[in-house]
Amino acid sequence: MKQTLLLLPGDGIGPEVTAEAQRICQLVAPDVAIEENLVGGISINTHGVPLTDAALDRARSVDAILLGAVGGPKWADVARDKRPEAGLLGLRKGLDVFANLRPAYCFGALVDASSLKRDRVEGLDIMIVRELTSGVYFGEPRGVETDANGVRRGFDMSVYTAPEVERVTRVALEIARGREGRVCSVDKANVMESGQFWREEVTTVHKTHGDGVELSHMLADACAMELVREPKQFDVILADNLFGDLLSDAAAMLTGSIGMLPSASLGTEGTPGLFEPVHGSAPDIAGQGIANPCAAILSLEMALRWSLARPDAADRIMAAVGRALEAGARTRDLGGDLSTTGMTDAIIDCL
Amino acid sequence: MKQTLLLLPGDGIGPEVTAEAQRICQLVAPDVAIEENLVGGISINTHGVPLTDAALDRARSVDAILLGAVGGPKWADVARDKRPEAGLLGLRKGLDVFANLRPAYCFGALVDASSLKRDRVEGLDIMIVRELTSGVYFGEPRGVETDANGVRRGFDMSVYTAPEVERVTRVALEIARGREGRVCSVDKANVMESGQFWREEVTTVHKTHGDGVELSHMLADACAMELVREPKQFDVILADNLFGDLLSDAAAMLTGSIGMLPSASLGTEGTPGLFEPVHGSAPDIAGQGIANPCAAILSLEMALRWSLARPDAADRIMAAVGRALEAGARTRDLGGDLSTTGMTDAIIDCL
Ligand SMILES: CC(C)[C@H](C(=O)O)[C@@H](O)C(=O)O
Ligand SMILES: CC(C)[C@H](C(=O)O)[C@@H](O)C(=O)O
Repeated sequence: MKQTLLLLPGDGIGPEVTAEAQRICQLVAPDVAIEENLVGGISINTHGVPLTDAALDRARSVDAILLGAVGGPKWADVARDKRPEAGLLGLRKGLDVFANLRPAYCFGALVDASSLKRDRVEGLDIMIVRELTSGVYFGEPRGVETDANGVRRGFDMSVYTAPEVERVTRVALEIARGREGRVCSVDKANVMESGQFWREEVTTVHKTHGDGVELSHMLADACAMELVREPKQFDVILADNLFGDLLSDAAAMLTGSIGMLPSASLGTEGTPGLFEPVHGSAPDIAGQGIANPCAAILSLEMALRWSLARPDAADRIMAAVGRALEAGARTRDLGGDLSTTGMTDAIIDCL
Repeated sequence: MKQTLLLLPGDGIGPEVTAEAQRICQLVAPDVAIEENLVGGISINTHGVPLTDAALDRARSVDAILLGAVGGPKWADVARDKRPEAGLLGLRKGLDVFANLRPAYCFGALVDASSLKRDRVEGLDIMIVRELTSGVYFGEPRGVETDANGVRRGFDMSVYTAPEVERVTRVALEIARGREGRVCSVDKANVMESGQFWREEVTTVHKTHGDGVELSHMLADACAMELVREPKQFDVILADNLFGDLLSDAAAMLTGSIGMLPSASLGTEGTPGLFEPVHGSAPDIAGQGIANPCAAILSLEMALRWSLARPDAADRIMAAVGRALEAGARTRDLGGDLSTTGMTDAIIDCL
């Protein structure tokens, strides 16, 4: 049966970079059918909501979803559930893509783009596995209220159940098995009950499913430090939704080229994965044709590898991006002057 | 009336480094009375609890408190409220020191110790103001429970009231006024109700009390990124307890010498401040006489400045540490071979 990739270009530079990924897809996997739909601000403009039920339903029935980016200054003062980001959260939750894979690797040709000294990042290759559909992002109760004494308060519940910790831990263990076999689980077990619970559950799951994988634990603050001090010590980092958000952004920036990094969000076997650049919608450069398309193209690479079972096509993309960079192809953010399309052309030349 | 400094050496390298700070105090402020008491693991060993009511009462009545560090592997498997860290949290809460000041500055002589390239950290001078007595660290309800279907869950409430946000914001604004006049407030307003609430309250407080200070807002994940990319863009960063924990550790590590950085935790006017190194108890090197005493000595410097109203004595310490480093004084962590005492001797020579 024909496979389908759903494009959700979204807002800002999203449409520009997903268009380039689409060009690459048509070259390396021409038989994959491509569809398009709305999410984020553009969906608000058209349908009044950041994600329609129909769009979510359709997303559930395809093989993989490639999202550009959502959000922009236009919606900054709107209520949280009416913002473009709510569409992204709704999509993650609706697809139940609980395991967010965020690699932080450094292309050899780009080592000098990093703020860090060469020896700290050369050969860097970390995989962050972030829980994506629970924790304080979705916990209940949450809200703002005024108590009996007239004091206003804002609150959110940070919560994890044992099955939620188990399934993401198993993904991290499985991924480590294909790498160096080391998982470092991150929490604040020293101050949070849910952190202590996370640590115990991860330890239990490792006992049953951790064959051949070494498990360690680190406090989230220490991890933030260690990522700066000696990032190459890590193989796989396992973190909850909130810590994973901060730590994966820091890890991505270590490589110096946030415009380069993709992510994959996976659910249970047989359900479609959601693939998206780590960068945002970058409204400041939208519409200028200068955005770096690599993160979107490498998100397609992850889609081909993790959801579409086409490792050969994925390998071709990875190699071509590396070669184009070696040959000096650079967008503005990498210190060059190639346009979005120009960068993709350079990659296509290397396919 | 004679001022009193209470030493709480605590565990690990705590006693080694506070002893050095005490030597310096006797030289620069000989009339300050010094007392000592127990907190953390050593208090557990002696009294069965990490902080006795008597120790907290005494701490409340002195002028400033200098704490070494708490914790160690011995208590790793003990229930959270019986651990050394609970003593520290109890002290913070009991003293109501809601504003935690964590500077991240780079001594000129140590710029090359950083993982970051010289131009990113030379002249770095950030002050992080972290809320210290609320948020998910203390929120209720919290715990681990099994629901009706037999599913176990761990949970913690992340909560802020308007007065809590107000008082720490006012401290950040006041501090910015003595610096470059810029506060960047950090939250996850895009996913947390308490984050949205934090942002609104900070904005409101700034309207009334922010004269001459520029306020901006940044998402916590973006801030983690920007700290790595271009840390010198920041003047004062204002963050809640949890984000402040991660971001201040990352910021401290940018300077490359975590053994150098102090912190101050301040309550309302007229109550004693709590001063402590950013580093922990470092059980791996405890008892060897090789720990870097600078963070403890600089914590004394902050105590003299913020609680004891002796800016001259504080300036003397700051200058002496700078000169000792210029002269090449280095402990092991800085690539040298001076002992804890030897480093202090070098600083005393420069007083
Ligand atoms: C846009 C935002 C809701 C999102 C998050 O916080 O998860 C983003 O930062 C990310 O990490 O994908
Ligand atoms: C020891 C621990 C409870 C503490 C915290 O998380 O606040 C520490 O990391 C700190 O930042 O002082």
